[in-house]
Amino acid sequence: LSFKLTILGSSGALPAYDRHPSAQLLEISNTQFLIDCGEGTQVQIKNFAGSVLKIDHIFISHLHGDHYLGLMGLIFSQHLFKRDKPLHIYAPKGLDEIITLQLKYAKSTPAFDLVFHLINTKASEVILETDKITVTTIPVIHKIPSVGFLFKEKIKERRLNKEKLPEGLKPEEMVLLKKGEDILDEQGQILFKADEITLSPKKSRSYAYMADTRYTENLNQYVKEVDLLYHEATFMEVDREKAIQTLHSTAAEAALFAKQAEVKKLIIGHFSARYKSLEPLLMEAKSIFNHTELAIEGVTFEIEE
Amino acid sequence: LSFKLTILGSSGALPAYDRHPSAQLLEISNTQFLIDCGEGTQVQIKNFAGSVLKIDHIFISHLHGDHYLGLMGLIFSQHLFKRDKPLHIYAPKGLDEIITLQLKYAKSTPAFDLVFHLINTKASEVILETDKITVTTIPVIHKIPSVGFLFKEKIKERRLNKEKLPEGLKPEEMVLLKKGEDILDEQGQILFKADEITLSPKKSRSYAYMADTRYTENLNQYVKEVDLLYHEATFMEVDREKAIQTLHSTAAEAALFAKQAEVKKLIIGHFSARYKSLEPLLMEAKSIFNHTELAIEGVTFEIEE
Repeated sequence: LSFKLTILGSSGALPAYDRHPSAQLLEISNTQFLIDCGEGTQVQIKNFAGSVLKIDHIFISHLHGDHYLGLMGLIFSQHLFKRDKPLHIYAPKGLDEIITLQLKYAKSTPAFDLVFHLINTKASEVILETDKITVTTIPVIHKIPSVGFLFKEKIKERRLNKEKLPEGLKPEEMVLLKKGEDILDEQGQILFKADEITLSPKKSRSYAYMADTRYTENLNQYVKEVDLLYHEATFMEVDREKAIQTLHSTAAEAALFAKQAEVKKLIIGHFSARYKSLEPLLMEAKSIFNHTELAIEGVTFEIEE
Repeated sequence: LSFKLTILGSSGALPAYDRHPSAQLLEISNTQFLIDCGEGTQVQIKNFAGSVLKIDHIFISHLHGDHYLGLMGLIFSQHLFKRDKPLHIYAPKGLDEIITLQLKYAKSTPAFDLVFHLINTKASEVILETDKITVTTIPVIHKIPSVGFLFKEKIKERRLNKEKLPEGLKPEEMVLLKKGEDILDEQGQILFKADEITLSPKKSRSYAYMADTRYTENLNQYVKEVDLLYHEATFMEVDREKAIQTLHSTAAEAALFAKQAEVKKLIIGHFSARYKSLEPLLMEAKSIFNHTELAIEGVTFEIEE
């Protein structure tokens, strides 16, 4: 089953060099989640062969324009496309008011349910739970109420080991075995031990999105050992004062954070318009954490099962 | 002195085929005016070598998303660019509230004055007058309160005819002559007649923007004989029912309007996403009014002095 992240926007607050503001498309088991939605995101989704109609859940980290200004246009378009299934939007306080006000002046009532989920930005909370995943907020440090997001697959079922499976098992017994429960006979004696005839579950894959945030070591408790971490790297070390002042991070800090959290791979993004070439940011990060890649628009990062 | 219009966006409500939502940059005597500001406009301005910093006046026709959703991002960027001169925004009721609410949640106070001018959409009114031009609204017919805009140069001064100009004229006498006033001697007798030693003024150029609107013949009183007319042409005649239902116009109707108003040139735009090729719309319009051109992004239409 799929677990892949496509970068739709990699730019900081000022668009530059054809880089678009923040937006990412995460697909887990064929369900698509949109993370942030800067200006132009609906077109970026189309450019990279996605479909907004497939997205049912949109997560907005905070209410700086470069993270949400594409949402209103996306909603208007969904209305024109005659979407009929609900669209869930998870965001800090204010976005519902902003969207509702604009719908009012456009005299537009979406043909579908627009469901706002208010995020508490002061604590880490589970904001979405499906049969396959949980989405948990990460209380990042920024100028206005902001969160990151941790997407994690739930613990999966054990897998039946075909080589060791006895014949004649009933379907309900297989269900029990997958859950790790032994099969008992009528006297309550163990007939088959689950851990002998099943294999351990496939690993639960995880992705964490850390934007926008000042580098903060003790936030790494929320993203420990994730398979894939996105951490903003608006600046380079030479501009660290600017990062401190604006509550952003440097490429080196993002890498240090990834190292401390012992993640498998780091993606850096949200690049300041002051950097035309991104190679120096990548080099800076790699010198601290080698498994770093740049958030390049259109690139997909996949985590194997 | 310059009088030229650059198309920044030509798409209707749904972006398609790399066409962007409505936005146009009008330059008159080196002053730049932005007309409508769909999503992505700040980047389109940059793409076509303009500079948002040069724009002091922005005119928004109505509050459908494809006509104003780029404005908030443009304002945030101007703030980051440390703009210090005022930005004037002319729009129907609601836009000030929408912008102010978003600034509030972003905890952002622009470093420059953001001056909102409320447009009365029910009558034709002069909303801006400078030493060179007037901007007058046109009460178009659409689903929500909407206006078009007429930009017209004021009547210019008469030009001194070097071949007939007597020697020894004082500067203040030249000022009078340019205004068409005769030069008198101390007894009040005519020394020099203005219309004999000056040439008639250069013509006052004009541009009218008609979007979005249902074709309405009696609106042509507002745009009579303009040099350049933009009229929306969302649909073709074959989809006229759709145009009637959504209060838009067809290419043929735009052309008929241009013909009735006796304008010099027509530009059609705001094309529906249902049309990939625009040639058929151009053909349809040209069959009625030959001086028609398509609103192609990046193209500049210039009116000579």
